[in-house]
This record gives sequence, C-alpha cells and structure tokens, in this order.
Amino acid sequence: MNGILSGLRVVEGSAFVAAPLCGMTLAQMGADVIRFDLPGGGIDYRRWPMAHTGLSIYWASLNKGKRSLVVDFRQPEGQELLSELITAPGDGRGILSTNFPMHGWLDYETLKMRRNDLIAMNIIGNPDGSVAVDYTVNSAVGFPFVTGEGAEEAPVNHVFPGWDVSTGYAAAMGILAAERHRYLTGEGQHVKLSLADVAFATVGNLGYIGEVQINNEERPNVGNSVYGSYGADFATNDGRRVMIIAVSVSQWKKLVDATESAAAMVKLEGELGLDFAKEEHRYEAREPIGEIIAAWCSAHTLAEVRATFEKNNVCWGPYQTFTQMVAEDPRCTPANPLFQEVEQPGIGSYLIPGVPHQFSAVERTHPHSPQLGEHTDEILADDLGLSSGEIGTLHDRSIIAGPK
Amino acid sequence: MNGILSGLRVVEGSAFVAAPLCGMTLAQMGADVIRFDLPGGGIDYRRWPMAHTGLSIYWASLNKGKRSLVVDFRQPEGQELLSELITAPGDGRGILSTNFPMHGWLDYETLKMRRNDLIAMNIIGNPDGSVAVDYTVNSAVGFPFVTGEGAEEAPVNHVFPGWDVSTGYAAAMGILAAERHRYLTGEGQHVKLSLADVAFATVGNLGYIGEVQINNEERPNVGNSVYGSYGADFATNDGRRVMIIAVSVSQWKKLVDATESAAAMVKLEGELGLDFAKEEHRYEAREPIGEIIAAWCSAHTLAEVRATFEKNNVCWGPYQTFTQMVAEDPRCTPANPLFQEVEQPGIGSYLIPGVPHQFSAVERTHPHSPQLGEHTDEILADDLGLSSGEIGTLHDRSIIAGPK
Repeated sequence: MNGILSGLRVVEGSAFVAAPLCGMTLAQMGADVIRFDLPGGGIDYRRWPMAHTGLSIYWASLNKGKRSLVVDFRQPEGQELLSELITAPGDGRGILSTNFPMHGWLDYETLKMRRNDLIAMNIIGNPDGSVAVDYTVNSAVGFPFVTGEGAEEAPVNHVFPGWDVSTGYAAAMGILAAERHRYLTGEGQHVKLSLADVAFATVGNLGYIGEVQINNEERPNVGNSVYGSYGADFATNDGRRVMIIAVSVSQWKKLVDATESAAAMVKLEGELGLDFAKEEHRYEAREPIGEIIAAWCSAHTLAEVRATFEKNNVCWGPYQTFTQMVAEDPRCTPANPLFQEVEQPGIGSYLIPGVPHQFSAVERTHPHSPQLGEHTDEILADDLGLSSGEIGTLHDRSIIAGPK
Repeated sequence: MNGILSGLRVVEGSAFVAAPLCGMTLAQMGADVIRFDLPGGGIDYRRWPMAHTGLSIYWASLNKGKRSLVVDFRQPEGQELLSELITAPGDGRGILSTNFPMHGWLDYETLKMRRNDLIAMNIIGNPDGSVAVDYTVNSAVGFPFVTGEGAEEAPVNHVFPGWDVSTGYAAAMGILAAERHRYLTGEGQHVKLSLADVAFATVGNLGYIGEVQINNEERPNVGNSVYGSYGADFATNDGRRVMIIAVSVSQWKKLVDATESAAAMVKLEGELGLDFAKEEHRYEAREPIGEIIAAWCSAHTLAEVRATFEKNNVCWGPYQTFTQMVAEDPRCTPANPLFQEVEQPGIGSYLIPGVPHQFSAVERTHPHSPQLGEHTDEILADDLGLSSGEIGTLHDRSIIAGPK
C-alpha cells in the first residue's frame, strides 16, 4: 500500500471501536499497522453485526488495511515476540497503540528498555485507568438529559458511539504529534488518552461547563431544535422527514425564499416585536416559525422539497434509515470517491469506505480487512527474521497461529 | 507556549465547531495557530452559550491558545496580507486550515503560486462542497431512527455534535499527516474533509452498511440498550439512574457478583435454554436480565451502587446533568489533570480543559482564549515585518482592527 503515511509502522493490541479505528485510519493512509490478537481472536472478533458465514462485519469493517498477527501473548514466548516487534529499530517504527492495560510485559518502562524512544498510545476508559466505555462515559456528561424526550427519569443514550470515534481520531492525531516530536528531538513518549477526558473536554469546549459555572444555568432540552439559533425537523406530505437549519442570516433568507414565507415571517416579526435577522430571535420564535415552515413542507413531497431546497441552497438534509441511506443517497455510492465496492473475503462484496480525507497528492485506497492470522508467518519471517523452521516450531507449540 | 507541536504554524479561517476545534487542539499542543476574523468577529462570535458580559462562552471555549488577527478580507489589501501570512516561508509554516469555501483569493492553486509546498486543510459539509452541518448530516445516516424512542414519524437527533468533533480531530490528524509527508518529500497538499464523509465512513466502519448490503437487515432500535451484547440503564432508589455494561464475560461475572444475582441468573438461563457467558444470549435475554438487575438497583441509593460497583470493578456510570457533572464528578475538577481553573478575560474564572491527550514528555497547558484582534499588531509586526507606521495606516483605513 502506498499512502501519505508510508514508512510509518504501528503495532496494535486492541478491541472494540476507538483503538481499532485509530489504527485503521493510519493503515488506510498507508502506514503498516500490525494488529496482534490471541488465537481465536480478541474480545471483539464476533461482535455484531455478524454475517451469516459466521464472520463479523463489524470486525472486518474496523480492521481494514491492517496486517493480522496471531500470537498467544498469555505465554512468555509470545510476549517476547511481540516486545521485539514493538521495539524493533528503524525510523517510523517503535510505535505501539493499544487499549489494553499497559501492565506486565506491556508496561511502558519495560518496553522502553528495549527502545528508548518508544512511542506508546494507550487508549483508556477513565483518566485513572479504570474501566469505562462510550455508554458509561456518555451517561456522565449531560447529553442524555437533553436528547430527544430525555428527562430525569428517562435519559436518552446516543447510538452513534461518538466518544469512541472522536477518541479514535484524536489518538491517531496524538501518535502523529508524538512521532513528529520524536523526529525532531529523538524523544519518545507515553501518551494516555481516555474516553472520559475526550468527553469531559468536549463539554468544556462547547461552553457547557462555563454555562454552569459562570451563568448558573445549563443547556435546556430543546429536542431536535438547535440551541440558540434556528433548526428543526418537519414532515413532508409523502411520509418522510427533513432537518432544516438556519444558523446564519444568509441561510435564513434562503429558507424564507425557498418556502415563499417572506410575508408570513414579516407579519410574525411584527406581532412578536422580533427581528429574525438575529439568531437569538429566531430561536425565541422557533415554534411559530416552525408552524409556517411545517405548513410548506407538509404540502410537498420529499422530491419536491429536495428540488426547491437544492435550487435555493437551503441548509437541509433528509432523514434516512440505514437502508434508505444505502438505497437512495448518492454520497453512499462509488460516485463518491469515499466508497468502493470491495470483496471482503468470507463476507462478500459491499461498499467499503476509505479514509474521509481526500489528499490531493496521494490516491485514496480501499483496502479490505485481513483474515485473522493472515500475516503471522510473513511478519515473523520478514520483520523478525525468523527461519521457516523456527516459525514451524512456534506453530507446533501453539505460540502463534495462521488463518483458519 | 511550549508543547509537543512547537514549531508548527497554522493560519485558520473558521467558524462553528469542527475547524475551530482542529486548530484549538493543535494550539493546545503548542502550535502557533493564528485565527483570522472580520472586524466585529465571524459568524460564530456571538454563539450560545453567552456570558452576561456579552461575550460568547462558546467562542472563548473553542479558540483557546490561538492568536487572534482581525483583517477585513473583503478588501483586496486584507486578502493580500492574509495570503502573505498563509504562504510565508519556513519549516512548519505554510499551513492553512479553513472551513471557508476555498474560492477567489483563498483558491488553493492561487495560494500555491506563492508557496509551492502549501498544505491546506479544507473542512467542508458535503464532499461536493455543498453546505451541510452536523444536524443535516446526522439526519441522513440512520442514527436518529434508532436513538431513544426514535421512529419513522419522530426521529431523534443527537445533541452532542459528534460529527463536528470527530471531524475536528480527523482534520488535525490530516494536517499532521500532510506535514509529515511534506517534511519527508517536500510535497504540499490540498486536503478536503467533509462532515458527510466522516459520517458515512463511520456508518461503514461500524458495519451497518455491510449489514444492509450483505444481510439485507438493518440495526434495530433497541433504545438505551447495547446492540448484540448487554447494556441498559436503571433507576436507583434515590431517583438517580445508572448505565451498566457487560460486553465481556469478565464484565458480566462482575455485574452478577456485585448484584448478588448468580442464583437468579442460573435459574433464568435454565428456563430460557441460554448461556449468559455468550454475549448474544445476554442480548436475547436482555429484558428478563434487566428485571433482576433493576430490582437490585432500585433497592440501593446511587452512593450504595457506586460503592458496590467500584469494589467489584463493574463497568458502569451514573447519569449526570451538566450541573451534576460539574458539581459531583471528580473527573470534572482540577484533581483531573485535564482541567484547570482559568481566568478567561471578559467572562470570568471557570474550569478549562486542556487537550485530552496526556503526553509523558511534555506538560499539559491550559491556555485561555484571545480577545478578538488581540494579536493583530503583533502578528503584522513580527510575522509580516510591517512597521508601526504601516500598521497605523492599515488601522486608519479599517483594513485591520485590534481588540475593543
């Protein structure tokens, strides 16, 4: 694979979303990412959604472009092989990414004795190292009480694992920052990044901590509406729904034009003594504004809404189920360079995304996922210099395994 | 500021969440990030939450650690000043990050004529450059129909702007990848990154496109439960709620031990012919399992649940409003190195997060946000070499502005 990160090598011990996504993003950009797993696969090897062939679509989707190495790292010899691989010499090497606890053989100081400039990214749950996952972090940071009909007795969890995904990209960014620093100074780094810190930092970065501490208020639940500006969702007359946004004056004018509601809005402004050029006034009047927009939307089909809004450059989007997204949206087809139809061995052919970044000077690639253990022998021979006899012995003694 | 990215300089033209977060993360890691704005501030300068002093807590929270330059880039002389700054020579310089349309004076090829190895990160809405924001992207990618009570006639928007935050970190990662490539090859890069592609890629990366295309099924709405494993939320007897997760056998055993429900679970397994060591069986039996856990939780206060779950290393978290998070959670205090109490000029003193990454070899810093235009004169003098007379003339002619 050739990509913008070619020459970088990362050894990954991972499960679930954040750590696999970090390594996958690096791999899709051309880094050599070696994911190691126990024989039979890690804790996420059978995670849903599963294909009827018995392979996990989830696992295949989060490990694209990596090489797969199966080593029994419960055994000292397996630990020794991995330690050697993690700390092997060379520019762009000596990088570990893991969401496993860095204890015992994976302890940073222990590994560092073999390579002094080792970079290790350790994705953890809580900053103190205790366990937490996206769901148990999300519950703590306020959002479930202001999502949907979320209320004190019935908070609403998000389903998009946004803390995992944000952490995955932040981890990849942290590895590149540490590697840049090492390139310039020669110094290695042990980086800790917790899901909880990503979430707590985000609440602060959006101003909600300041709102509590400075204003003694907190962001209210306004359902699907946008807080402090204008945005809401509406039904079309063919049973579909659309999300409409007007956070700028320009977006507001386009919406009013597209829905031919200028006269109605002027009348409403007069009645309420408000000026809808101000976003806080649009927010204050969101219910009566919504009645006007709702009447227009409910008189048109989704196709008509789309045609009018596209012509007028309205900021809007249709609601789509996962099936509708795949069936209807041109952004989810090979016409969008993000996607290609790729054959994933053991699962079948389906649309596989590359990295979301489109770099002008390198091509976007669409690698599939490895088979578990597919590259075990290759890595031991090429990267660790073991002979075929030595590799055979390790297989016989169940220290390593190849694909089934 | 001294940090892991010291020596990097990024010029930023931005608004809202993704692009400001990208630059802020780089700045908090020690890069010199210069945000340029029109006189009076950009479209997000008054965004909610607002402090009673008239300054935006939101704006202050997303621009920490940057330098602020106010230039009227509607005027050719303002465009010329910014073009010179963006393309100034030097290692680690020549980097633009923007969510503005890269047309006219901001066109990549035009800027590249001044610096051939320019790196430009352009955060956009849709891959074709058309407008989209977090809300209008989220509506298209399936999640609102499987969140909360989300249904065909009433989809539920997430409130955490997860596509914005993911895109912000992915953009920072993309800039570092491009800068690494430039360092090694001398080649610049125009990078496009759309909110929509981040969202569509994520749906693919989680396996939900494969689920539709391979299985002809889609992820169902299971409310606050975890899909394909065990996780649910419960009330305590003092009116609070907790999220509990058991995605691994080990987490399941800890939960059963902590809630003293081993006998009840064995009985249930027998009745249903299931084996709760298998996560798909825990998922299948999530309702009767939930009744057993609910009975235990409703007999204990949150404090009792916490003590028992911490002792047993259960994977769980309390639900907290934004206010409860600030008032009760030790992770949201200066005891967590993520946070420091910082005085933000014009707003007040409150808890400000640094980057979520904890690097071992550099200290985490907690810069506050600049005043709008605070660094205009300094940047024009130090970075563009203008004399105080020239700077005075630019002020007089309203090409530039300082702080109010």
